[in-house]
Amino acid sequence: MRQDTDALGATALPEGSLYGVHTARAVANFPVSGQVVAPELLIAYAWVKAACALANQDGGHLDAPRTAAIVAACREIAAGRHAEQFPVDALQGGAGTSTNMNVNEVVANRALQLMGRQPGDSEFLSPLGHVNLHQSTNDTYPTALRVAALTLLKDLETAASRLQDALQAKETAFAHIVKVGRTELMDAVPMTLGMTFGAFAEAVARDRWRIFKCRERIKQVPLGGTAVGTGLGAPRAFIFKAAEHLRHLTGLPVSRAENLVDATANADCFVEVSGILSAFAANLLKIASDLRLLASGPHTGLGEIRLPALQAGSSIMPGKVNPVIPECVGQAALTVMGNHQTVTLVAGLGQLEINQYLPLLAHKLLESIRLLRDASTLFADKCVAGIDADETRCRELVEKSQALATVLVPALGYETVARLMDEARAAGRSLAAHLDAVGLLPQAEAAELLLPKRMRKLGFEEEDYECLRRPGADRHPGPPNGEGVKGGSRCYL
Amino acid sequence: MRQDTDALGATALPEGSLYGVHTARAVANFPVSGQVVAPELLIAYAWVKAACALANQDGGHLDAPRTAAIVAACREIAAGRHAEQFPVDALQGGAGTSTNMNVNEVVANRALQLMGRQPGDSEFLSPLGHVNLHQSTNDTYPTALRVAALTLLKDLETAASRLQDALQAKETAFAHIVKVGRTELMDAVPMTLGMTFGAFAEAVARDRWRIFKCRERIKQVPLGGTAVGTGLGAPRAFIFKAAEHLRHLTGLPVSRAENLVDATANADCFVEVSGILSAFAANLLKIASDLRLLASGPHTGLGEIRLPALQAGSSIMPGKVNPVIPECVGQAALTVMGNHQTVTLVAGLGQLEINQYLPLLAHKLLESIRLLRDASTLFADKCVAGIDADETRCRELVEKSQALATVLVPALGYETVARLMDEARAAGRSLAAHLDAVGLLPQAEAAELLLPKRMRKLGFEEEDYECLRRPGADRHPGPPNGEGVKGGSRCYL
Amino acid sequence: MRQDTDALGATALPEGSLYGVHTARAVANFPVSGQVVAPELLIAYAWVKAACALANQDGGHLDAPRTAAIVAACREIAAGRHAEQFPVDALQGGAGTSTNMNVNEVVANRALQLMGRQPGDSEFLSPLGHVNLHQSTNDTYPTALRVAALTLLKDLETAASRLQDALQAKETAFAHIVKVGRTELMDAVPMTLGMTFGAFAEAVARDRWRIFKCRERIKQVPLGGTAVGTGLGAPRAFIFKAAEHLRHLTGLPVSRAENLVDATANADCFVEVSGILSAFAANLLKIASDLRLLASGPHTGLGEIRLPALQAGSSIMPGKVNPVIPECVGQAALTVMGNHQTVTLVAGLGQLEINQYLPLLAHKLLESIRLLRDASTLFADKCVAGIDADETRCRELVEKSQALATVLVPALGYETVARLMDEARAAGRSLAAHLDAVGLLPQAEAAELLLPKRMRKLGFEEEDYECLRRPGADRHPGPPNGEGVKGGSRCYL
Amino acid sequence: MRQDTDALGATALPEGSLYGVHTARAVANFPVSGQVVAPELLIAYAWVKAACALANQDGGHLDAPRTAAIVAACREIAAGRHAEQFPVDALQGGAGTSTNMNVNEVVANRALQLMGRQPGDSEFLSPLGHVNLHQSTNDTYPTALRVAALTLLKDLETAASRLQDALQAKETAFAHIVKVGRTELMDAVPMTLGMTFGAFAEAVARDRWRIFKCRERIKQVPLGGTAVGTGLGAPRAFIFKAAEHLRHLTGLPVSRAENLVDATANADCFVEVSGILSAFAANLLKIASDLRLLASGPHTGLGEIRLPALQAGSSIMPGKVNPVIPECVGQAALTVMGNHQTVTLVAGLGQLEINQYLPLLAHKLLESIRLLRDASTLFADKCVAGIDADETRCRELVEKSQALATVLVPALGYETVARLMDEARAAGRSLAAHLDAVGLLPQAEAAELLLPKRMRKLGFEEEDYECLRRPGADRHPGPPNGEGVKGGSRCYL
Repeated sequence: MRQDTDALGATALPEGSLYGVHTARAVANFPVSGQVVAPELLIAYAWVKAACALANQDGGHLDAPRTAAIVAACREIAAGRHAEQFPVDALQGGAGTSTNMNVNEVVANRALQLMGRQPGDSEFLSPLGHVNLHQSTNDTYPTALRVAALTLLKDLETAASRLQDALQAKETAFAHIVKVGRTELMDAVPMTLGMTFGAFAEAVARDRWRIFKCRERIKQVPLGGTAVGTGLGAPRAFIFKAAEHLRHLTGLPVSRAENLVDATANADCFVEVSGILSAFAANLLKIASDLRLLASGPHTGLGEIRLPALQAGSSIMPGKVNPVIPECVGQAALTVMGNHQTVTLVAGLGQLEINQYLPLLAHKLLESIRLLRDASTLFADKCVAGIDADETRCRELVEKSQALATVLVPALGYETVARLMDEARAAGRSLAAHLDAVGLLPQAEAAELLLPKRMRKLGFEEEDYECLRRPGADRHPGPPNGEGVKGGSRCYL
Repeated sequence: MRQDTDALGATALPEGSLYGVHTARAVANFPVSGQVVAPELLIAYAWVKAACALANQDGGHLDAPRTAAIVAACREIAAGRHAEQFPVDALQGGAGTSTNMNVNEVVANRALQLMGRQPGDSEFLSPLGHVNLHQSTNDTYPTALRVAALTLLKDLETAASRLQDALQAKETAFAHIVKVGRTELMDAVPMTLGMTFGAFAEAVARDRWRIFKCRERIKQVPLGGTAVGTGLGAPRAFIFKAAEHLRHLTGLPVSRAENLVDATANADCFVEVSGILSAFAANLLKIASDLRLLASGPHTGLGEIRLPALQAGSSIMPGKVNPVIPECVGQAALTVMGNHQTVTLVAGLGQLEINQYLPLLAHKLLESIRLLRDASTLFADKCVAGIDADETRCRELVEKSQALATVLVPALGYETVARLMDEARAAGRSLAAHLDAVGLLPQAEAAELLLPKRMRKLGFEEEDYECLRRPGADRHPGPPNGEGVKGGSRCYL
Repeated sequence: MRQDTDALGATALPEGSLYGVHTARAVANFPVSGQVVAPELLIAYAWVKAACALANQDGGHLDAPRTAAIVAACREIAAGRHAEQFPVDALQGGAGTSTNMNVNEVVANRALQLMGRQPGDSEFLSPLGHVNLHQSTNDTYPTALRVAALTLLKDLETAASRLQDALQAKETAFAHIVKVGRTELMDAVPMTLGMTFGAFAEAVARDRWRIFKCRERIKQVPLGGTAVGTGLGAPRAFIFKAAEHLRHLTGLPVSRAENLVDATANADCFVEVSGILSAFAANLLKIASDLRLLASGPHTGLGEIRLPALQAGSSIMPGKVNPVIPECVGQAALTVMGNHQTVTLVAGLGQLEINQYLPLLAHKLLESIRLLRDASTLFADKCVAGIDADETRCRELVEKSQALATVLVPALGYETVARLMDEARAAGRSLAAHLDAVGLLPQAEAAELLLPKRMRKLGFEEEDYECLRRPGADRHPGPPNGEGVKGGSRCYL
Repeated sequence: MRQDTDALGATALPEGSLYGVHTARAVANFPVSGQVVAPELLIAYAWVKAACALANQDGGHLDAPRTAAIVAACREIAAGRHAEQFPVDALQGGAGTSTNMNVNEVVANRALQLMGRQPGDSEFLSPLGHVNLHQSTNDTYPTALRVAALTLLKDLETAASRLQDALQAKETAFAHIVKVGRTELMDAVPMTLGMTFGAFAEAVARDRWRIFKCRERIKQVPLGGTAVGTGLGAPRAFIFKAAEHLRHLTGLPVSRAENLVDATANADCFVEVSGILSAFAANLLKIASDLRLLASGPHTGLGEIRLPALQAGSSIMPGKVNPVIPECVGQAALTVMGNHQTVTLVAGLGQLEINQYLPLLAHKLLESIRLLRDASTLFADKCVAGIDADETRCRELVEKSQALATVLVPALGYETVARLMDEARAAGRSLAAHLDAVGLLPQAEAAELLLPKRMRKLGFEEEDYECLRRPGADRHPGPPNGEGVKGGSRCYL
């Protein structure tokens, strides 16, 4: 068992551990959430440490062999290795100090190994003296958080795009299916099933755009500001170099913030990002709930679409298939909404020069991005892509819903249509059959009024109702809605 | 007492009322929040009605005298007149139908008056047949909400700018005052009071920019889409004209949405705006709390600044002045955070073709913008502008805080400084006096190390510590942090 | 115009105002939410002032005429008079000081009038010297808030009871209607419509019980504790008397808190109450959403029930009636949920000896109780009481849903039922007809298996399936689910 | 590699796995949160399965050997074994079906092993046919959740008690230390440091009581109700027995709910529990923040107390120790607050016969209880127990704060005290010295007015100011506040 020592005394460390006394104390101090720090944050932190080592080398503060070893160790961590060496709780106190020290220790000890030495040989390479040289938790932690968020947001953009594509494919596939539109869950007017998916896709397209844009807002990092953003203790040249190295190492468009005191203390940029995520969550919840509703049944619900069956359903009800993916997506969305509340609060509760609750913000923000990324991908691949329409059911409901009547109102006026419907009911025939019988509209032409192409044309033109203008027909009966109005319809719903 | 009638029967209306039966029923149906619909929404709705009347006139659907009367009535409402004619509860059911009808009725009846007729003469001018011609609640309500939000956001931008200016004025005014920076509420390293206000100002500058940008996201309106976004019942030409008239009437950059089904059903664009507001709220809460902390005392708190006294304090404690404005601002910020949760949820709970809870979203979103606007202005004018610094107190605390020691660490190394502090304590003198006594640093030059200009220079350069390089001085004692390191300092906090 | 003066100078007051300079300054200082303090809080505050006057009289501190006048003025305010004299914003800073002073001033000036003197004659009767004698905002404000909440909660209990009654009436009325139960929106097994309403009623019964119980948690008041709960400046006898008078005046079971420092500083008891309210809100949202779903249609939705029509629907769709009351209730519920977040936060953000954000907590807590009270009453009277069942539709869906099959599974086993269904489908007849045809079960007896009384009996007994045990029938085919099991069924859904 | 098959086909299972095809599909279907189901829920689920097996045995449905093996397997799971066999994501869709099936499969396969057979031998013992016999996810999942919550709440009560004890120990230890009370962060009147901790302790005592009481609200379980609460498919006797067995096995006071349809569908009882937790969270955030504030410094903050040093602080600031435990506790509290929002929403979003998002509710509710349990214990042991008071600092601040003046106001009146303070200032001496010099009050007796015993006595009595009643002293100068008032003081703060 290796030992490590700090101002509070010596501690024994587990066999094989690359971390040191600070990490061990933090593990003992924060047995609270049972969740460790997000891997994306640790990866980003490794890049920050590598960038600082290179900047220190540039300034002649760190020699070449140590720099090389530190950078190599950081690259290993950034590649996902040594994950088990980061056992500190996600809800740690100390504004991230324990994570910074955890990274410093693992980088130092791994670098020592790479140089053929033993972990713990801090005379040769020290977590504080070499790895953390010219740095503070207060500038490196918010920097690493930005890097982690930028990286994850890129993935999220890809996932959003995948979902958008899946929805658009259904928009196209269902473009020919007329269905009943519903407002406030009540039967309204006809539209196409393609339009339903088109509206979903459009919303996700906005999400994608927002995610793309919001990455810009967190690219300015406080690296070099040290404790409170004044750069106290850091050589000026180092400050200018560090962010540059970080940009090259990560390939991300990070740059040094103009006002380092601000970028150290304030977390509103994360609230903005999280706000964007909450809009995405709202869309996902809405789409997932709509799909559940449209797929409800199979016999006693709406049943206009069928979701893919992913797991066996009931042993009582043959064929019961539950909408498990939309339910999963809905729960992810609700979690993201809750997380935003926490992110906002943490940003608002920051005190003076730094934000003491930043680890909580980091935990929730990165979780939100990850959840949306995975939920979107899941949604696209396991649900949306496999959705079928029940065209028969859609048509059946359109017929039931008096859609034809609503389509005639703009041409004939509300009162006339109501009278025709009464007549049809009295004659015991459908409205279409009645219109044909009274010579107002051949049934074939009535059907044409309900074609998808009619739904997709925005509004109407005179010639759309040409069919009604035959001699003798009770056509276009003048101003239906009162004096001074011509050809109008009251669309109030 | 005038009477008005709908499908459910006749109702008596109060003397002098310009509204009709739909409004009266809505008032009776929704006695729930005690708050009426936001005036900004009603004003925006009036513009929408005027735009539609003009578009109907263009298409030959509405004659000139009626159009003129409708537009004149709308202008009156948009100017804030007739506010008492809109008594419907803000939390009305019906997805806004009651507000749409309230506006239709007041516009119709007021237009009738302007044409020398009696309110209620719906044969001549009808709320549904003329004012609502070719419209639905489902396209006009979300359009009006966007117009209202756009207008208020412009005001908010102005208010944010005013707050930013007030903070920047203090940044300049306090640029010369050195103070202790605090992290996790513990004494950290020196900075200037100007920097504190500069960081506040920078955060608000971001808010301002975000507000400016987010206006772009809600400028696309679903006007013309009628019930579900297909434009059913509206002439094509009308659809194209209506948004154009709205743009001219309001001077706002509104345009018709590409996908009207989407813009009718989805509310994520409002979540985005509200997310931006929650970031602003976080900044306001943070700034207000920091000011309360810095002003705490006067005798037993931090006391580095003094807030203006706005109301008499205690009758026990002479001179007790409470930080009432920051407390008020904090409460406004907390309200906005809560509102965002509601806005997000409402967007997520929308079902199928429209959002049934949009009135709640509208109520909370507009309240948030208004609250931030008024709280920012209040904050700027009644608090920030009048803040004084207690320079004596700031200096006293800097001396107490061992700031000089922290400033020396980069040059002398942590161990040397700690030793010098021990020696000073043993000798019963201040660190500065001790450094002078042992010939390391004349007291005057020590003072220079704590000048504001030193705080404002990012990081250090070799010559910054030139003063320590006198013959015989225990200066720059080589690599302080271990082999392979030169001139470095561990900044870990 | 009357003038009033404080330490900051003189101010002119509006004609007829009963308030004074503190109120006027507060109005000027807090132009933020546009909403005034809740009337219930002001009424409660009036009772607190009356109680204190009487306790001061008991101790010989206040003479009889002044006491009588103060109490009379307080009674007027408590009766809802002078409401326009309380113009201070609900989100005021100062932890309620402005409301305390507003009450002090109006009580003093109204008492002066009652004694035949002019408002403002503070030499004779002073807001601070007489009305506020031995009190602080810090003990009176939390006391008044508790009194206000206790009173409103009583109303809420009544409203909950009314809603419970309305739901129970429907439970009885619909006890005979068999319908399809749905889980995850998918067809499940049969139940009765009465059970649906019974489950709603049971949930509301729990709410009612919780409201009843939680009133106990806020009955301990910090009255007498003055500034921080030590009672500094208040005579001991006064402290003991004041809460007693308050109990008598209000008829509420208030008593002095054991630990006044705690009751002054901590607001967790309000979080508890608000948590109870959030459970009620969850139930209301659930019930309202379920009703909207069950009433969806009329032609293309579930359509099992019909909500009362309260306002005219569409001018395109004849007969469109929207579920406006459930939508209104849903919005009230969402508001209460958001408010709870704010209440919790405010309680958590309190600092040291008092809670600086208590006015926001008061505003949101009282709004929540009021909203739930009014929404419950509305819900009961305008919606639930008028709900009709569509028995035909319910029966039709039960037939479609294969409910008979699910009911047979416990007796015949899953595989047998599946086989019989296949046979029926092949023979082109319903399952019931097929069972009759193959001699397994006469159609009349099959119908009996779906009788409401069967639904209401918990589980099954052997004799429930006696009908199947006729000679030759393919009855109870032994262990359906594997060796070692007898008579069992797998109920996994 | 073992294979398992369901209606969708065959799947290969990992070596050594005890779960089966349903679990494998669920793992593949829900790669979303990366967090597995709470162990407490799985343990509780195991008890539910054991209880059902015993009830099935009682009814003759399950033979003795299989029953014994199932119960033995369940006991192993309940003892925490086989944790790695439950890999399903916490945010699974399907309302808990996957967790139910995961438990069914692991219990079945482990029971098979215990009977000397191979996992997967479902002919002999089947997850559905035997383990899940007469059960549904819809009754067992909410039952297991109640059992898990009841168990965890018991632990939480213990933890709350521990924290209360730690705070009370400090209340006693600091009872003799007079300090400045602060309201709105401004200097107010004197109190003792013991009182500060006493108020904390009292708040936690309320939490403890609430936790104790709320356990009662979730003890009624829907076990036996199967799919929708009608008990379809379950023998009546089984339904009555199952809950009984569960009570015996767990030692918890669970009983069968009266209304099983309600208990299956509604989740408001969990909102109530979670609301209680949010009150606890508010208290923890408040206490943790107050401790951070009181411990701020050490040189430039309040510095009235010192928190134990748990990890090394800064390398720049010697002796910097951060309040890491209060910060950790604060983050746990904020998380619980966010979770309550989610729990409330989920309860409100439940649809019809079951709640489709219950797994999310379970995840958040159990996390909240666990977080509060661990944070409270941590807080008690690692922070509160080790807090020291800085008596010198407290005394110093009391002197600075004019506490003596505030204590004299009730006796001398505000104006007299103000005059004496002016005189003292002019004479360049402390108020105490001045009072002595002018013969009003010997300095020793002034000191007595500030003794802790005076703070602890509620309010004042005549004799408390006896010291001032010496001949010639400017004592008790009559009605200080206006005619008609005697001996009073205005306590307005």
